[in-house]
Amino acid sequence: MTSTREQFIRTTCQLLESQGYHGTGMAQIVEESGAPKGSLYYHFPGGKEELAERAVELAGRSTAEVIRGNLREDLPLPEALRRYVRGIADRVKESGYQSGSPLTATAMETVHGSERLNTACREAFLRIQKAFEEKLVQADFSPQEAGQLAVFLVSAIEGGIMLSRTHHSPEPLQKVADQLDVFFQAYEDQE
Amino acid sequence: MTSTREQFIRTTCQLLESQGYHGTGMAQIVEESGAPKGSLYYHFPGGKEELAERAVELAGRSTAEVIRGNLREDLPLPEALRRYVRGIADRVKESGYQSGSPLTATAMETVHGSERLNTACREAFLRIQKAFEEKLVQADFSPQEAGQLAVFLVSAIEGGIMLSRTHHSPEPLQKVADQLDVFFQAYEDQE
Repeated sequence: MTSTREQFIRTTCQLLESQGYHGTGMAQIVEESGAPKGSLYYHFPGGKEELAERAVELAGRSTAEVIRGNLREDLPLPEALRRYVRGIADRVKESGYQSGSPLTATAMETVHGSERLNTACREAFLRIQKAFEEKLVQADFSPQEAGQLAVFLVSAIEGGIMLSRTHHSPEPLQKVADQLDVFFQAYEDQE
Repeated sequence: MTSTREQFIRTTCQLLESQGYHGTGMAQIVEESGAPKGSLYYHFPGGKEELAERAVELAGRSTAEVIRGNLREDLPLPEALRRYVRGIADRVKESGYQSGSPLTATAMETVHGSERLNTACREAFLRIQKAFEEKLVQADFSPQEAGQLAVFLVSAIEGGIMLSRTHHSPEPLQKVADQLDVFFQAYEDQE
């Protein structure tokens, strides 16, 4: 069951993902969620900022869940990562380049503009990073290496999604997927 | 000499970098550039979109110039890249996390919202990629490898800047710098 409250959060999440925070107005959120306007302020007395905070939190949790669920453990890590990132490229393409990297625009727009959203974005990225760290530790990287590598992974993937969406093409992210495979193979060979 | 026209473009560039496209209003551009409002529409009859298009173009050209000028050729490529990316981390920190990755927010906000700005962002990223490609070819990578690796570099660096700005910390980008060093050393060893 999706409650009205949840529907507002999901709609906001999609709008932040496709066009960013400042480009998303309350009127559009109400229209696209199909709920009465009065109920928006009832559920979110803090208005757009509060709603976006919840949407950023949802985006962080969902992405971390997808990493835990979709990064296969029955394959060697380099190959599992390559497939995982190529899978994102497919989904970005299928969305018509509307989806992918739900946090990036909002994070960049609110580095200084909203302490509340900046904090929410930090926590969301840390959650995503943590999901990668767990997978890396399972694949026998030390906790310290896993921490370093998780930041690198998040950076390369978020940057690759940004380029793929900008170019309306899965290719940049597919190239990132292939290079991460080379990187992790080389890294493991060094050990 | 900085003309009024150039001053408007530079101011817009800084505002897009610190807060994105939709968060930047014409009134703020006029105020921060210190020029009369009438002259803004005289120089840019297409308004904010036209001005942002020129700012995106400037950001692409400037970043490509910085890569050509700052990525040292007297060092092995992995070390040169590490120093280059750590240098960006220093500058992002010095700016109080207001600067770094001038195109990302605007690119993500305008994937579909403005064909004109989407095209400008694509061209700007290709220009940046090209500058890395040239450096990689000079360091004896084949043109095909250089093309792949340049996309990977741009992705990892842009993503790392985004994380550093979000966390108000140079660390994420410093970690990216160190991992790129490991990656390129391993890549060269494989050859």
